[in-house]
Amino acid sequence: MGQPLTVGVDFGTLSGRAVVVRVADGAELGSAVFEYPHGVLDETLPATGRPLPPDWALQVPADYVGVLRTAVPAALAAAGADPADVIGIATDFTACTMVPTTADGTPLCELPEFAGNPHAYVKLWKHHSAQPQADRINELARTRGEKWLPRYGGLISSEWEFAKGLQVFEEAPEVYGAMRYWVEAADWIVWQLTGTYVRNACTAGYKGILQDGQYPSRDFLRELAPGFESFVADKLEHPLGQLGSRAGSLSAEAAEWTGLPEGIAVAVGNVDAHVTAPAANAVEPGQMVAIMGTSTCHVMNGAELREVPGMCGVVDGGIVSGLWGYEAGQSGVGDIFGWFTEHFAQDGHEELTRLAAQQEIGEHGLVALDWHSGNRSVLVDHELSGVIVGQTLATRAEDVYRALLEATAFGTRKIIETFGEAGVPVTELIIAGGLVKNALLMQIYADVTNLPLSVIGSEQGPALGSAIHAAVAAGAYPDIRAAAAAMGSVERAVYQPVPAHVTAYDELYAEYTTLHDYFGRGGNDVMHRLAARRRAVAKGRS
Amino acid sequence: MGQPLTVGVDFGTLSGRAVVVRVADGAELGSAVFEYPHGVLDETLPATGRPLPPDWALQVPADYVGVLRTAVPAALAAAGADPADVIGIATDFTACTMVPTTADGTPLCELPEFAGNPHAYVKLWKHHSAQPQADRINELARTRGEKWLPRYGGLISSEWEFAKGLQVFEEAPEVYGAMRYWVEAADWIVWQLTGTYVRNACTAGYKGILQDGQYPSRDFLRELAPGFESFVADKLEHPLGQLGSRAGSLSAEAAEWTGLPEGIAVAVGNVDAHVTAPAANAVEPGQMVAIMGTSTCHVMNGAELREVPGMCGVVDGGIVSGLWGYEAGQSGVGDIFGWFTEHFAQDGHEELTRLAAQQEIGEHGLVALDWHSGNRSVLVDHELSGVIVGQTLATRAEDVYRALLEATAFGTRKIIETFGEAGVPVTELIIAGGLVKNALLMQIYADVTNLPLSVIGSEQGPALGSAIHAAVAAGAYPDIRAAAAAMGSVERAVYQPVPAHVTAYDELYAEYTTLHDYFGRGGNDVMHRLAARRRAVAKGRS
Repeated sequence: MGQPLTVGVDFGTLSGRAVVVRVADGAELGSAVFEYPHGVLDETLPATGRPLPPDWALQVPADYVGVLRTAVPAALAAAGADPADVIGIATDFTACTMVPTTADGTPLCELPEFAGNPHAYVKLWKHHSAQPQADRINELARTRGEKWLPRYGGLISSEWEFAKGLQVFEEAPEVYGAMRYWVEAADWIVWQLTGTYVRNACTAGYKGILQDGQYPSRDFLRELAPGFESFVADKLEHPLGQLGSRAGSLSAEAAEWTGLPEGIAVAVGNVDAHVTAPAANAVEPGQMVAIMGTSTCHVMNGAELREVPGMCGVVDGGIVSGLWGYEAGQSGVGDIFGWFTEHFAQDGHEELTRLAAQQEIGEHGLVALDWHSGNRSVLVDHELSGVIVGQTLATRAEDVYRALLEATAFGTRKIIETFGEAGVPVTELIIAGGLVKNALLMQIYADVTNLPLSVIGSEQGPALGSAIHAAVAAGAYPDIRAAAAAMGSVERAVYQPVPAHVTAYDELYAEYTTLHDYFGRGGNDVMHRLAARRRAVAKGRS
Repeated sequence: MGQPLTVGVDFGTLSGRAVVVRVADGAELGSAVFEYPHGVLDETLPATGRPLPPDWALQVPADYVGVLRTAVPAALAAAGADPADVIGIATDFTACTMVPTTADGTPLCELPEFAGNPHAYVKLWKHHSAQPQADRINELARTRGEKWLPRYGGLISSEWEFAKGLQVFEEAPEVYGAMRYWVEAADWIVWQLTGTYVRNACTAGYKGILQDGQYPSRDFLRELAPGFESFVADKLEHPLGQLGSRAGSLSAEAAEWTGLPEGIAVAVGNVDAHVTAPAANAVEPGQMVAIMGTSTCHVMNGAELREVPGMCGVVDGGIVSGLWGYEAGQSGVGDIFGWFTEHFAQDGHEELTRLAAQQEIGEHGLVALDWHSGNRSVLVDHELSGVIVGQTLATRAEDVYRALLEATAFGTRKIIETFGEAGVPVTELIIAGGLVKNALLMQIYADVTNLPLSVIGSEQGPALGSAIHAAVAAGAYPDIRAAAAAMGSVERAVYQPVPAHVTAYDELYAEYTTLHDYFGRGGNDVMHRLAARRRAVAKGRS
C-alpha cells in the first residue's frame, strides 16, 4: 500500500479532466482529458438535423460518462498509480447546467420518444434563451418584494434552475410532464458514481434560490405561471448534501468504468469555480479568486452577509462551511478573445499579444464593452452585446484585441468596486484558469484593478480542488480549510500594479463606466431591440 | 480633320485618369490612368524618413504632372485619336487639397530648403490634423455671428483652406513666410497647363469661404490669431474664373507634355464631385448626385438659397451658373469597407458581399456608425470615430461588413433628411463613382433612403464631366446645361425601394439616429477624449 491518493474530476464546457493527487501535500501525479464527442450543441440538434434557435446551448449527458470511463483510467495510468491507493473521488461541474431525468436518473434525451426534442437535452450554463422567463421572475419578485431576491444581487439569471425550468414548462409541456427531476449536472454525475441522488448545497443555493432553508413559494410560482406552483415539490426538492461531505460510495458499475476500488468515498457534487478557491488556498475573507477561461467566475468568502447588487449570489457555506460564499461572473472573457482571433484577425493569439504588448495605454484610441456573451455581473442581462467605440481607418486587429483584453479587465474592476461599495472589500485577486498564462493580460488586470495579482500554483485548479474535497469526504482532513492549507498552492503578488498605468486606466475606466451605464442601465436599450429583431428574423426562418 | 474632341482629366486620391471624349455626343473614345508614384504620404515623409503625426495626409505635386505627361498621351493613343482634333482640355481635382507655392507657382516642397518640412507639401483633402484650428474658427465665428457661417451648415471643416492655412501659420511659420500663394491643387494643375494662375469660383466658394464677394474679414482673422489678419490679402486672394470658362490656352511646355496642340482651350479648374453632375445629366433642382468611392460627395442644385445645417456649403453657381450649388459629404465610405476587408476579414469583398446579401434586414443584430474617417455632414467633426454595437460570439465578418454598408446608407439618409428639413427637398438620388457596381449596396441605399436610385452611364464620370467643361470652355456649347444634355448619360431608377425593406430599415435608422446624436451631438464626447489621448501618446513617442 502506497501513500493515500484522491481523484478529482473537473467537467468543463468542452471536456472533462481527471487528476490523481497525493493527499499529503496536493502533488499532482498524473492527469488526462476527454473531449466531449458532441461538444456544445448550439447550431443544430444532431438527432434531427434541425437548427436550434439563437442563444441555445445543449449537451449530451453520455459525454460526461465518457470522462469517467476514459479520463479517470488514463489519469491513473499517467500517474503510475495503484488504484488501490485511491481513497476517494470528487467532481466539479459547470453550473447552472441542468439535466431533465426520470425517477431513476435517466436523461430524457436518452428515451427514444424524446431524442428529437431539444428540451430533453442538457441545458448548458450558457444556454441563454430563457431570458424572457428570467425577466418575468425578476419583475414579479420585485413587485412582491421577495426576500430572496437581494441575495442574488437583485436579479435571477436566465442561466439558472428556475428560468430554464420555466422555459421547459412553457415551451415543452410534454418534456416537463415526463421529467421527474430537474437535476444539476453536478449532482447527476455523482448520481452516476454512487447510484444515489444527492443535491449539493452549493448549486441549490446559488442556482436553485434556496435561502434560509426555503425555495420560492408556491404562491410566487403560481402567480408566475399557473400550473408551475408545484415545480419545487415535483421536480426540484431533494435531500441536500454539504460541500466536502460524502455523498455515498463508488458503485460497482462506476468502479468498473473508472478502474477505482468499489466503495471508496464519493464527495457531494460541486462547482468548478467554487472548488478552485481551496485549490488556490484562498478561502479567507477578501481573497477573490477569478477563474479565467472562456468566461470568468469570481468567488470569495466573507465573514458577514451583505447584499451586493448584481452579484450571482451569496450562500451560507457556499464555498467553505462557516463563511458566506459570494459569487460573481463575467459571461464572456477568453471566448471573446477566441472569437475575435478566429473570425476577425489574420494573426493568432500569440502575434496579436506581441503587437498589443508594444502599445502604450490609450494608443489604440478604443474602448470596448465586453458583453459579447451578455453580462452576468453586475448587470445580469444576457441580452446585452458587445460594443466597440473609436475605430478609425488606422485601427488594426491588435488594437481591437487589446481593447477587448482591457474591456474584460474593466468588467472585473466593476465587480470588485461593486463588492467594495456593498461592504465586502476585495484585498487580493488570485487568478486561476487557462488565461493566467497571458502575461500581458495579467499585467492589464493588475493595472486596471490596482491590486496585486496572485496566481494559482496548479494548472488544473478545479480538478485539484475536487481532489481536495475528495480527501475531506474520505476523512483524511477535518475540513476544507485544513485540506486547502495542506494541498492548495498559490504564488503571491506575481503581478504588481504600475502606478502610471493605474492612472491612465482610471481615465479609460471612466469611459467604460459611462458606456456601461448608457447601454446597460436603460440609457439606450438598443441592444435589447437588436436582439429581439435578430430573434424575430431567426424565428421567421425556422 | 475628324470630329471635335475634348480631353477630361480627373485627379483622384491615388491616381489621375484622362479620357478622350467626342464633343457631339459624349462618347468616350479612350482613357488611361496614371498612379501617383508617392500615393498618399500618411506614415512617413520619404525625404526624411520621419514619421508623420496621426491624421496627416500629404502628396507630392510632381505626381500630378506625371498624369499630364503619361495618362493624357496614353488616352489619345487608346482612342486612336488625332491630337489635332482636340479642341480643349479640362481638369477636376480632389478638394480641398492645398499647395503652398512661390510667386511663380513652384511648390515649396520642391525647394531644397523645405524638402524635409512636411508643411511644405500638398495637404490632401483628408489631412485632418487641423481640427483644433477648425474648432477655433467655428467658435469665434459663432461668437461673432459671422454671416458666412450658415452658408457652410454652421461649421467650417478642418479640411478647408482656412483651417489648413492657419495650421501652417502656427506650426510652420518659416513655410508660411516663404509661401506666396496658398493654391487649390485644382487651380495649380491649370496653372501648369496654361502658365497662368486663375482661382476657380467653385473651390473659392466651397473651401475658401468666399460668399457674396467677401472673404472673412481682417478683424476676424486678427482675433483668430494675431498676425493672421493678412492671410487673405497675402496668400489667398486672386482673380476668379467661373466654371466652364476658359482659363487660358495650353502652353508650349504643356503641349509637349500632353501631345496636345498648343493654344487650345484650357477650362477653369474644378472639383471631381461637381463636374460629375453634368456627366450624369443631373443639373436640375432635387437631383442629388452621390459620388461614391473611398468617400462620398453629394452635390445638388437648388433654385433658392437655403441654410442647411452641416452641409459642406452652398455657393452661387457652384455647380452650374444660375443655380445655387449645394454640397455635402461622407468622409469615409468605400475606404471603410476596404479597411474592414483588409484588416478584419478572411474573405474578400466579393465573398463578404455574397454572404451579406443572403441576410434579412436585422438578422446580424448590429448597428454601426460610419465615422471611421470622421463625419463631414451633417456633424462636420473629423475627430469622431467608428462604433459598432451588438456583437455577439455568433457575429461573423459578413455581419459586420453588412452593418458597415448599412451605416453609410444611414449616413446618406441623414444628409437627405437634413436637406429636406431645411427646404431643399431631394427627389432623386443619382449614383456615380466606383461603388455603383455593388448591387447589394445600391439596393440597401434605395431601401434606406426610400428613393429610386439612378445610375450614371459612364464609368469615369468626373473625367467625362471635365471633358464636358472643356467643350464649353472651347465654345462648342453655350453653357454646361446644354453640354450636359448632349454629352452626359444616366440610367433612371435602376434600383427601386422595396416597401418591406423600407419599413425594416426605418427601425434600424432610428437606432442609428439615437447613437448618432449621443456620440455626435454632445451626449458622450468619448470619441474626442479617445482621439486626444491617442494624439498625446503619439506625440510622446515622436
